[in-house]
Amino acid sequence: MLSKRCLSAIPADVRITLLTDFGTRDGYTGAMKGVISSIAPDAIIDDIAHDIDAGDVRAGAWALGAYWHRYPEGTVHIAVVDPGVGSARRALVARLDGRYVVAPDNGLITLALDDASDVAIREIPAPSADAAPTFHGRDVFAPIAAHLAAGTAFDHLGSLINDPLVIVFPTNSHSESGIAGSVIHVDRFGNIVTSIRPDTPANAVIRVADVTIPIGRTYSDAEPGTLIAVTGSRGYLEISLRDGNASRALGMKLGDEVILDTPT
Amino acid sequence: MLSKRCLSAIPADVRITLLTDFGTRDGYTGAMKGVISSIAPDAIIDDIAHDIDAGDVRAGAWALGAYWHRYPEGTVHIAVVDPGVGSARRALVARLDGRYVVAPDNGLITLALDDASDVAIREIPAPSADAAPTFHGRDVFAPIAAHLAAGTAFDHLGSLINDPLVIVFPTNSHSESGIAGSVIHVDRFGNIVTSIRPDTPANAVIRVADVTIPIGRTYSDAEPGTLIAVTGSRGYLEISLRDGNASRALGMKLGDEVILDTPT
Amino acid sequence: MLSKRCLSAIPADVRITLLTDFGTRDGYTGAMKGVISSIAPDAIIDDIAHDIDAGDVRAGAWALGAYWHRYPEGTVHIAVVDPGVGSARRALVARLDGRYVVAPDNGLITLALDDASDVAIREIPAPSADAAPTFHGRDVFAPIAAHLAAGTAFDHLGSLINDPLVIVFPTNSHSESGIAGSVIHVDRFGNIVTSIRPDTPANAVIRVADVTIPIGRTYSDAEPGTLIAVTGSRGYLEISLRDGNASRALGMKLGDEVILDTPT
Repeated sequence: MLSKRCLSAIPADVRITLLTDFGTRDGYTGAMKGVISSIAPDAIIDDIAHDIDAGDVRAGAWALGAYWHRYPEGTVHIAVVDPGVGSARRALVARLDGRYVVAPDNGLITLALDDASDVAIREIPAPSADAAPTFHGRDVFAPIAAHLAAGTAFDHLGSLINDPLVIVFPTNSHSESGIAGSVIHVDRFGNIVTSIRPDTPANAVIRVADVTIPIGRTYSDAEPGTLIAVTGSRGYLEISLRDGNASRALGMKLGDEVILDTPT
Repeated sequence: MLSKRCLSAIPADVRITLLTDFGTRDGYTGAMKGVISSIAPDAIIDDIAHDIDAGDVRAGAWALGAYWHRYPEGTVHIAVVDPGVGSARRALVARLDGRYVVAPDNGLITLALDDASDVAIREIPAPSADAAPTFHGRDVFAPIAAHLAAGTAFDHLGSLINDPLVIVFPTNSHSESGIAGSVIHVDRFGNIVTSIRPDTPANAVIRVADVTIPIGRTYSDAEPGTLIAVTGSRGYLEISLRDGNASRALGMKLGDEVILDTPT
Repeated sequence: MLSKRCLSAIPADVRITLLTDFGTRDGYTGAMKGVISSIAPDAIIDDIAHDIDAGDVRAGAWALGAYWHRYPEGTVHIAVVDPGVGSARRALVARLDGRYVVAPDNGLITLALDDASDVAIREIPAPSADAAPTFHGRDVFAPIAAHLAAGTAFDHLGSLINDPLVIVFPTNSHSESGIAGSVIHVDRFGNIVTSIRPDTPANAVIRVADVTIPIGRTYSDAEPGTLIAVTGSRGYLEISLRDGNASRALGMKLGDEVILDTPT
């Protein structure tokens, strides 16, 4: 009886997630986790990625877009890819559909912002003099996130702003026979993610340079060693090489053109 | 008093472990963790590995064999190396000696199965139409694992099967003077793990191609720069190069022959 | 009412951190985590790094120095970079300012020791016969750490020692016009960390070989593509290349000389 009442009174531990370009071998992320657990001892810290290419804000924004909304409300996401650390660039804490994102104001939150309906963004006040100008991950973002997790109200964390810096991702145009888009991401498997997010007609194909690629439902619809285009898990058309690396095979990279061709 | 009773009524948080070939930089594992924590907010999620070579089911099976039974009963292990995602391949949830393994039916559970005494395996029902055919890690395996962790009974998770797909690992044969086996794994250190799991006679040696290697107890029994064979932490004989990489030095790879030679 | 009293009676879960050179793809760290959670089911396990270069004790010591004291008292840090595993090298559990470090006695704790005021070190008794001589991470360090986390008193864990093995990091000398130091670490970004920890005079510069580098406050004080020296997050002067990799650009490595030049 008593125990039941107790149990129900215990809130689930808040989760804090961590995405950085710090790698792990220098102990930088360890320092962030230590700071967090000193302020919010019960917080569960989920590593997302620490191997974003150094300084690649666009790649960080892409990854953040994959998971921020999959977590329950109340989750605090830290994202630190921050080549401008210590400069005049602002630092943000955003509340997006009930989740929080703590990040530098350099475009990292672009895709999370795109997907959110209920948005509030605050500028984190300038760090105190003893914050290391080279490591706001440890001295600014981790403490803010931990205080949020420990119960500090979002409304107390700085002034509202409405002009966060966003990255302009490529848009598509209409070509003669379909849609012209471009490569917006290449994943670990070499899958080439395009900007095209179609309700794809049944007889459409993908064309890149002089290669024509059929559209299927999943990777293994292709014969081993052949190319296929499928709608990926975030709704974008992506080009895949069965049991291989499409990006290497096609020599394709960010920004390259991709045509969705719909014969009439 | 009260507090004591409360404390004892609080069960330990269930753990869910994650092994994939997804890497981390695309946010795929973050999406899985988000799904898990939305369904089972108190679950502790332990990363095991996300750098299994893309599509290398055998390597995933090897790694899973290292830890599944070290965790306490009730743990839910997710293993996703799944080149056939979205195809007709089945998805499984297995109960092995009180731990659970959620994985595609492609051989990933082979070595865990080998080691388990009490085995029950169920086929996870086909995913709903809104599951992405390219990402069952997020839309099938993570939710099933989270529901298990949150208290759904194993018996409610699908129909029993008794024919999971297993990988045939190489077996040994008797040679003139001992045992002929082969390389079944190469680890991060370049240690060459063989299929030989002997009660090794004191005067035995290992032979590979034209090299003879003494058998010792641990790596540092060898002089720096020299080769030694030891019984590794999973009971298999492995070949090691003190302060170096045996696999590179010997040019050995999966499947290469290894002889345990017992002079009479 | 009741629930409040219950809540306050529930201690924060103890955290155990893990630093190794095991990588993750072999399942070795999974085995350690399984052992920990079997003994201490509520412990939160934070990965710090598993990609320390194989056998690089110095690099492990450097990383450990970044985070051990950022965690709250009671945290148990496991550090295993252990080329001498299974040999006569001792194993240690240290209490440093209220945190614990469990590690082989090979210098891994050097920098943590340097920073601690309140120090006690115990030698972990020799492992039992069934401990794998090649994997004390799983069979010695993980269980000791888990027992500490689960409440075993530090004083019961072996005999006090006062002669831990320490690594001698380079010291600085006075040159004609300033301080002569050397490279003690290169981080993921290619930042070159030096042994110089100065109260730097305003007009000082850094010289390496025939290159003169200005001193600034943070990375982005330099123009893109140019070099700058800043005081890093651990108080050492480090050399950085804006939007690039200083270590590669300068061809500098551990031990190379660096001069802090203070024109008079």
